[in-house]
Amino acid sequence: MRPMTHTIRDKQKLLARVRRIRGQVEAIERALDGEAGCEKVMHLISAVRGATNGLMAEVVEDHVRTHLVDSERHPGALNAEATDQLLDVVRTYLK
Amino acid sequence: MRPMTHTIRDKQKLLARVRRIRGQVEAIERALDGEAGCEKVMHLISAVRGATNGLMAEVVEDHVRTHLVDSERHPGALNAEATDQLLDVVRTYLK
Amino acid sequence: MRPMTHTIRDKQKLLARVRRIRGQVEAIERALDGEAGCEKVMHLISAVRGATNGLMAEVVEDHVRTHLVDSERHPGALNAEATDQLLDVVRTYLK
Amino acid sequence: MRPMTHTIRDKQKLLARVRRIRGQVEAIERALDGEAGCEKVMHLISAVRGATNGLMAEVVEDHVRTHLVDSERHPGALNAEATDQLLDVVRTYLK
Repeated sequence: MRPMTHTIRDKQKLLARVRRIRGQVEAIERALDGEAGCEKVMHLISAVRGATNGLMAEVVEDHVRTHLVDSERHPGALNAEATDQLLDVVRTYLK
Repeated sequence: MRPMTHTIRDKQKLLARVRRIRGQVEAIERALDGEAGCEKVMHLISAVRGATNGLMAEVVEDHVRTHLVDSERHPGALNAEATDQLLDVVRTYLK
Repeated sequence: MRPMTHTIRDKQKLLARVRRIRGQVEAIERALDGEAGCEKVMHLISAVRGATNGLMAEVVEDHVRTHLVDSERHPGALNAEATDQLLDVVRTYLK
Repeated sequence: MRPMTHTIRDKQKLLARVRRIRGQVEAIERALDGEAGCEKVMHLISAVRGATNGLMAEVVEDHVRTHLVDSERHPGALNAEATDQLLDVVRTYLK
């Protein structure tokens, strides 16, 4: 049996995140339906925003590490330090 | 027959927005499941963020107009111009 | 001798914040001029963004507490709890 | 006489942006000092935020195009399409 590839593990992790976000969106729907107060609704929306930013940060990281350089044709071409600096900025803005 | 109250109309409008966001989140799920490219996934996440910000802007506006002043006990106390200036800033930051 | 009014104290506090931001902007200028690396420059810009958001949060709070209701004509009309809930959301988005 | 290098032209462009931001910060200082209304001050702060985000987007772009791959050792290794997709997302979030 072949081990699960990197990509498929990533996909499962991302799917788990998206499903959690769907659950958070459904919680907003229930809160509105149940006439919850604005405070509760605003907190739930804020949680969706945080989780969506976290998902974006992860997809951007995958994109940078996987697609900016074709590592089979150009092994070692992606500068690890510069990549980390970029992703630090991305995470700061997606917090 | 009584006319639909302001609150219930607002609730329906907000629920419609939330359901649209749920549909957008499900589109991310399908895109990941179908091995769509990062670009597609990043666009879909960006759309959820925009829609979530729009929802927050609307809930904040309802909150400000409905709850900051009890208009039955203090009719006319909420300054309309200052409220508009506040909501302009909120919308700028939630774009 | 009259005590310093609330407004003037607020103004001094806001001016101190703005001057700190000016200093941070000048630090970006010096970093670029001195050929500092991107990482350093990105950190300095990120600091200006954080400080600018903090300034905005403070001005919005002053605006809400001072201008949404004319407290001389409508004493006690501004709902303290609803105001705090609003400002919590504002601060979350301006972090 | 040697032509101005790419880096030095970039530096001048970035310095011009930073000086414009410094001018915008000084305008906030004057507005506060001159007891301008909250609305004016909030607009000026919002302008600094926009300009700071624009500066960050430009520095991030320079960083990605210049440092993620050492183009002398690995010419052509940076995938142009994937880079554009990344920078599109960065710009969307820094608007």
